[in-house]
Amino acid sequence: MSDQLEHYFTSNRQAHLEELSQFLRIPSISVGTEHKEHIRKAAAWLADSLKSGGMEHAQLLETGGNPVVYADWLHAPGKPTLLIYGHYDVQPSDPDDRWDSPPFEPTIRDGKLYARGATDDKGQLFIHMKAVAALLATEGKLPVNIKWCIEGEEEIASKHLFALLEKEAEKLQADAVVISDGPMQERGVPSILYGLRGLCGFQLDVTGPRHDLHSGLYGGGVQNPIFALSELLASMKNNEGTITIDGFYEGVEPLSEADRERFTTLKHDDAKVQRDLAVNALFGEAGYSFLERTTARPTLEIHTITGGFQGEGIKPIVPSSASAKLSCRLVDQQDPDRIFELIERHIELHKPAGVEVKLTLLVKGKPFRVSTDNPYIQAAARAYEAGFGASPVFVRAGGSIPIVDSFSRLLEAPVVLMNFGLPDENLHAPNEHFHLENFDLGLRTVCHFVRLVGAP
Amino acid sequence: MSDQLEHYFTSNRQAHLEELSQFLRIPSISVGTEHKEHIRKAAAWLADSLKSGGMEHAQLLETGGNPVVYADWLHAPGKPTLLIYGHYDVQPSDPDDRWDSPPFEPTIRDGKLYARGATDDKGQLFIHMKAVAALLATEGKLPVNIKWCIEGEEEIASKHLFALLEKEAEKLQADAVVISDGPMQERGVPSILYGLRGLCGFQLDVTGPRHDLHSGLYGGGVQNPIFALSELLASMKNNEGTITIDGFYEGVEPLSEADRERFTTLKHDDAKVQRDLAVNALFGEAGYSFLERTTARPTLEIHTITGGFQGEGIKPIVPSSASAKLSCRLVDQQDPDRIFELIERHIELHKPAGVEVKLTLLVKGKPFRVSTDNPYIQAAARAYEAGFGASPVFVRAGGSIPIVDSFSRLLEAPVVLMNFGLPDENLHAPNEHFHLENFDLGLRTVCHFVRLVGAP
Repeated sequence: MSDQLEHYFTSNRQAHLEELSQFLRIPSISVGTEHKEHIRKAAAWLADSLKSGGMEHAQLLETGGNPVVYADWLHAPGKPTLLIYGHYDVQPSDPDDRWDSPPFEPTIRDGKLYARGATDDKGQLFIHMKAVAALLATEGKLPVNIKWCIEGEEEIASKHLFALLEKEAEKLQADAVVISDGPMQERGVPSILYGLRGLCGFQLDVTGPRHDLHSGLYGGGVQNPIFALSELLASMKNNEGTITIDGFYEGVEPLSEADRERFTTLKHDDAKVQRDLAVNALFGEAGYSFLERTTARPTLEIHTITGGFQGEGIKPIVPSSASAKLSCRLVDQQDPDRIFELIERHIELHKPAGVEVKLTLLVKGKPFRVSTDNPYIQAAARAYEAGFGASPVFVRAGGSIPIVDSFSRLLEAPVVLMNFGLPDENLHAPNEHFHLENFDLGLRTVCHFVRLVGAP
Repeated sequence: MSDQLEHYFTSNRQAHLEELSQFLRIPSISVGTEHKEHIRKAAAWLADSLKSGGMEHAQLLETGGNPVVYADWLHAPGKPTLLIYGHYDVQPSDPDDRWDSPPFEPTIRDGKLYARGATDDKGQLFIHMKAVAALLATEGKLPVNIKWCIEGEEEIASKHLFALLEKEAEKLQADAVVISDGPMQERGVPSILYGLRGLCGFQLDVTGPRHDLHSGLYGGGVQNPIFALSELLASMKNNEGTITIDGFYEGVEPLSEADRERFTTLKHDDAKVQRDLAVNALFGEAGYSFLERTTARPTLEIHTITGGFQGEGIKPIVPSSASAKLSCRLVDQQDPDRIFELIERHIELHKPAGVEVKLTLLVKGKPFRVSTDNPYIQAAARAYEAGFGASPVFVRAGGSIPIVDSFSRLLEAPVVLMNFGLPDENLHAPNEHFHLENFDLGLRTVCHFVRLVGAP
């Protein structure tokens, strides 16, 4: 790292953190409709910030939903073009009373910045923005061409981005896509994602009697929708954690010896995870390790269940309905549409008597893989070595960024998933935070990456 | 019925309905704590109304919870004393948007009075109040002694009444207890309850990870508390509706031939119930009819379930916890404490790996039976014949009035359960109502009953 750049980052650190805090103060929650105004505010803030960082053509691309922020700097003819993707929308903050400091009042404690979106994804996106701005400010130009594509619907399955990518494929054309929207392996161990799981999210609605019934008069005589829903949910997995939906594992490739060895060398500390989560045991599909279960194997998780009287005390009713929201993480050749069909069939077969069951698809995305030999992936590895002083590990991640598969297909460009978060930064949970140490190292790493791509 | 009494009821009908509407306008909901003021208001209203009906010693007995309204008229020496029980508390009204007229704005449509509490139990209690007041007004005296015991915690399992009955056993001493707090068999067919089911209500709390986790990072690797809860619930009943908690049916007597015949002669219209409830099938314990299942057999029903993200859209988490509220209706020799123990043991045996499960007892009451040969029961039967022009059927009810067993034990008095409601009056549900035809017939029937007890 040049002295000049190092000086730039050091002397601007406070200003950078203040600017990031401005961004984090905007509650740009995309779930639901009550934060539409904040979504707009966050998008406009980003366009302004990119402009003042030297980017050109900063604009909001309308999608029919939340806008995508676009900007570019295209003055490196003959050099590769990088498309940097991120998202400015965040998860809801509830339960707010479980946060030690308010979710939208960024607070630094013990070298960590606490706020909703700190690590997912505002903090990580901001690293790219400030690294590129720093290169431009200190050197007057960039060694590559840069485009930005920052969406506001990542937390609601990128509803409108797919169509936008098709429509604006030319504008967004690039040689590689760069995304930082997840955790590194662990503190001090950077990682590059070469696989992501796909997603199939759905809702189950069970309907029984026309209205809630007094359980003293009708109890025992009609099907209870909560019981029917529980039975259906329980029928989808056995007590060894194996999913029992017929055909579910079709297209899942057995883990190769090399894969399993790679998992073993990661030396994952299961006992530490168990302690951190305060559970009496880790639990998952029989025959697989924690890391394999959470990254390379498909899953079925229940996110929401609700039914009956939701007030204080007990109200002895047979409720009229009950519902649940679930999603499957998918791997290899599993296809979300096919999985949805299999679930439909499972429900048809297992539907308890006396109720109606409705199944609704909520989100979907295909699994993703990239070759670790790709030159952009290799450049990222070298950048980490220079920035962190540590070789990255190559990992498959359990999460889903459905848009990754689309980028790779529609732009025909490799996707480089280089993360700066940590696994225990409470993303999607109270007390989300971002380690500032990785913010600092990330700035340097992105500078190295951009230079390596420009002069391999 | 004397012409004088008939004239009294006819000329006072409008005033009676207006007075009942006043009572129904008070949202005296006992579940939760936000209606404490309305509870007090309803109790005070009752004491005033009893006083203006000629009762003496009207007072609120403090219980540590909601007060019990007491009053008496004891000027018939040598004659039996009747204790009339009722309750002035009501169920919550939610979901309010499912009511065709607001729950606490009584409205008459098609000869029915719509309001929360119309049939359960304000309307039925009010029949007794006005019948006794009418006898006193038209004849200057009563043929029996009367005491009133009207509680404000029936919908929350009569939390403080048990202790009060023990403490005030002498004051409340009576030869028979009269209760109207449920439905008749059907329109035109009055009924006398000779059996009630007991109750054991409890809450299940399943706790997993310290906080909600991102399902993309931890999904598949930790037990999902909603899944664990669903599995536990599903393990308590099989798909034929039989409860699978070991030992649950201990103390349940097989239905006698006579019992089963009595059920058959009731000629219950299952198809009509199915149509009314809009379900594709009735469902319950294999080997029993709908009537047997809902009155003579024990049950296990789930009233509430909740877990995970409760907002709009999908939030892909492994939630930190999930919980459910359930109750069992008990018959014959089943004891709620024993049932709770069996459930504890069941949970210990079936607890899924990776979560903690907490079981909390919420309410309990023993089953109740009375002999149909008892003279007070027989007086009630003759009163129905005179008032309704129809012989009552003797039925066992599915509901629970835990206090009935206590009255019968602590006061050593038979309990006469004579109802004036109808089964489809939506008690505990939106659009609760009371048929005014039965209000009118009830007034006459109670007068007959009081006279028959005074001069058998």
